[in-house]
Amino acid sequence: MLEQLKQLVYEANMELPKRKLITYTWGNVSAIDRETGYFVIKPSGVDYDDLKAEDMVVMDLEGNRIEGKYKPSSDTATHIELYKAYPEMGGVVHTHSPWATTWAQAGKGIPCYGTTHADYFYGEIPCARSLTPEEIQGEYEKNTGLVIIETFEGKNPMFVPGVLCTNHGPFTWGKDAAEAVHNAVVLEEVAKMAFRTEMLNPGVKPTPQVLLDKHFLRKHGANAYYGQ
Amino acid sequence: MLEQLKQLVYEANMELPKRKLITYTWGNVSAIDRETGYFVIKPSGVDYDDLKAEDMVVMDLEGNRIEGKYKPSSDTATHIELYKAYPEMGGVVHTHSPWATTWAQAGKGIPCYGTTHADYFYGEIPCARSLTPEEIQGEYEKNTGLVIIETFEGKNPMFVPGVLCTNHGPFTWGKDAAEAVHNAVVLEEVAKMAFRTEMLNPGVKPTPQVLLDKHFLRKHGANAYYGQ
Amino acid sequence: MLEQLKQLVYEANMELPKRKLITYTWGNVSAIDRETGYFVIKPSGVDYDDLKAEDMVVMDLEGNRIEGKYKPSSDTATHIELYKAYPEMGGVVHTHSPWATTWAQAGKGIPCYGTTHADYFYGEIPCARSLTPEEIQGEYEKNTGLVIIETFEGKNPMFVPGVLCTNHGPFTWGKDAAEAVHNAVVLEEVAKMAFRTEMLNPGVKPTPQVLLDKHFLRKHGANAYYGQ
Amino acid sequence: MLEQLKQLVYEANMELPKRKLITYTWGNVSAIDRETGYFVIKPSGVDYDDLKAEDMVVMDLEGNRIEGKYKPSSDTATHIELYKAYPEMGGVVHTHSPWATTWAQAGKGIPCYGTTHADYFYGEIPCARSLTPEEIQGEYEKNTGLVIIETFEGKNPMFVPGVLCTNHGPFTWGKDAAEAVHNAVVLEEVAKMAFRTEMLNPGVKPTPQVLLDKHFLRKHGANAYYGQ
Repeated sequence: MLEQLKQLVYEANMELPKRKLITYTWGNVSAIDRETGYFVIKPSGVDYDDLKAEDMVVMDLEGNRIEGKYKPSSDTATHIELYKAYPEMGGVVHTHSPWATTWAQAGKGIPCYGTTHADYFYGEIPCARSLTPEEIQGEYEKNTGLVIIETFEGKNPMFVPGVLCTNHGPFTWGKDAAEAVHNAVVLEEVAKMAFRTEMLNPGVKPTPQVLLDKHFLRKHGANAYYGQ
Repeated sequence: MLEQLKQLVYEANMELPKRKLITYTWGNVSAIDRETGYFVIKPSGVDYDDLKAEDMVVMDLEGNRIEGKYKPSSDTATHIELYKAYPEMGGVVHTHSPWATTWAQAGKGIPCYGTTHADYFYGEIPCARSLTPEEIQGEYEKNTGLVIIETFEGKNPMFVPGVLCTNHGPFTWGKDAAEAVHNAVVLEEVAKMAFRTEMLNPGVKPTPQVLLDKHFLRKHGANAYYGQ
Repeated sequence: MLEQLKQLVYEANMELPKRKLITYTWGNVSAIDRETGYFVIKPSGVDYDDLKAEDMVVMDLEGNRIEGKYKPSSDTATHIELYKAYPEMGGVVHTHSPWATTWAQAGKGIPCYGTTHADYFYGEIPCARSLTPEEIQGEYEKNTGLVIIETFEGKNPMFVPGVLCTNHGPFTWGKDAAEAVHNAVVLEEVAKMAFRTEMLNPGVKPTPQVLLDKHFLRKHGANAYYGQ
Repeated sequence: MLEQLKQLVYEANMELPKRKLITYTWGNVSAIDRETGYFVIKPSGVDYDDLKAEDMVVMDLEGNRIEGKYKPSSDTATHIELYKAYPEMGGVVHTHSPWATTWAQAGKGIPCYGTTHADYFYGEIPCARSLTPEEIQGEYEKNTGLVIIETFEGKNPMFVPGVLCTNHGPFTWGKDAAEAVHNAVVLEEVAKMAFRTEMLNPGVKPTPQVLLDKHFLRKHGANAYYGQ
């Protein structure tokens, strides 16, 4: 079932250690098949060295395991909320990549300081509010998803395809698993350079809106002219 | 004698350079066989490139060499104190991994700033007090162990499986050699992110207790639900 | 056409990932053949893993594609302005290398703090002024080149073979593609060490002029005595 | 001539890129044969990828090339002064390794903040004074050596086997080429951790003398007990 999607999700998961976004098993990638409404996600706590495409778990959006011998990622409920809220979302990634996690631990969104950021994220990458004690003690992973959705109220998450969860780490997404991982790599690079930019010039201001517009729209939308 | 344990201790030692925790020979791993009361430890100052499983040294808890052609690690007396004090401890690691050593040199414990920390360490990773001149000039390595034990008085060291020795570096432990090394890797990653978190937000507060509880208990204890 | 130059430009582009100056496709190298007035540049947005020498695009200085199946780099117009302004320039590189980009994002030129810098750059590596909204909304890439040229008015760009574009990243150049990439590597190393130098000693002063003279002229000009 | 020493010096030079101490050709190692009074040094500006043992240059202490087709390292005159002043010195290394160079650019010696430092350097690693304009414009490389010697007046350079040259970078040394390179690796690691220690705790104090004594003498001198 969904063999091709399993293969793509497997490959996207294997990008995480290759791109140095994770230590041990601290990350997971999923992707959804909108026709069946099923999504495919990494199993929980399995070593990347041992992981195979066939180990990917097939789930429905109610959280039922449709296929797979392993338990799905412990963050599955967060993925579900995102897929339910955003029909345009095809892939979701969670990591503890160190630079993005630093911003999450500091409780600060990442301002746009340059065109590297502007090429992918149309403005600040937000830091979601802390969960309340009730939200943590209740359905924690589901509530993590709901707080992300609250953060993007009135905004298009496909224009800022990532978020920082306070005291935790980043989630990113995209039209499919590969793009979601691509955005996780970019986020990490952007988080690193933004950190150093603030260290070097504590009074630095974000990139002017006109440059943000220019670069984001050079790569996205009807008038894009980057690439082939 | 204890051939299987030697193999495991050898493999755990070889993880240290592979995971970039050490330069040259600046580290050592041991593990104990509680039935015989003997433990196996890396020899002192032997190149990792030349190290073999059969070079591991078998010691008893009085510090006698039971088997092995090499002298044991110069930190052996510290390992002994830890094994004597904590029957649940199966493996011990010492490194000079650079981020953890930075905190040790700064004389500061590592506050819990996020779930990466909370998944493994149930609260601040403490920095032990400096040894007195008498403790340094006397049985230095043994006293290093005793000061670690003093630091954990009234606490469960298996819930915070690591410590920083002031002006020196970290020790970590676990139920066996592999888990002790795993915790050394996590400690280094946590130390790096905590450093950057404080740089980015000097007034940052530790993770709320409720989130610490949630994440530590998601992975440990009777209600754990992470992994297979 | 220009097969040898295509090969050299291809090899110079492949140095960028090898030297860790780029993530994904965030960079481009070109080189010019002054006899024909044509230059060769990397295509836009093609994966480095898939890139071949024959994929390089041949352009003229009016921006016409002379040969090649791909569209040229989106930064082509910047390369054109530099080649037109500086006949001694044979190769141009653009990257988002993280340390140089940090200085660009902070809007600060890199002072000369030591002989590593002085061996290659005869004084501060300047940060060009921000483009105006009109310059950004108009011919953005061309105007980026014009602002670089404005930055070097009255100066010899071959003596300081690099610049930082505010909120963007670095351009470097040289007598050919290989030297331009070499200077991009040096710039990144110098940017890293200058950042750390300012962190370690906030009041640090630039290298005295006499030492700058000594080192730059040890490697450049009639009295150079470095190398074979 | 001195074929075995050439091989050792060649191997020691090849450690520099392997240990990530250098970019391009920014470093050199030499070693001396005290019987003949000749020393062997890397040629100037030759790529490490092309370097062979037979390319090493044999020099005498008056600066005459005794054997070799290449010109010796441009820093040869510095090596000569050190060999002439210190009969116990058998090998000398110069690099622009980034962390040590950061301290040199900041004009600050590296205080001893922990046992990693104390195991190899018996106290602060000094930063030599700036050369005067006359010293720079005159025999620059020779004067660099003389200022190092001035820095160690009344001290034993074998107890602190390294120095930082202001606005330049580090020199290290040892009883032979391999030990000199070993000390260069340790210096870089120590420089990195000391930088971070000061960032994390700006008021941090150096390691107490009693701990410095304990660790340095654990590895050096008559009562050493580290290693086999």
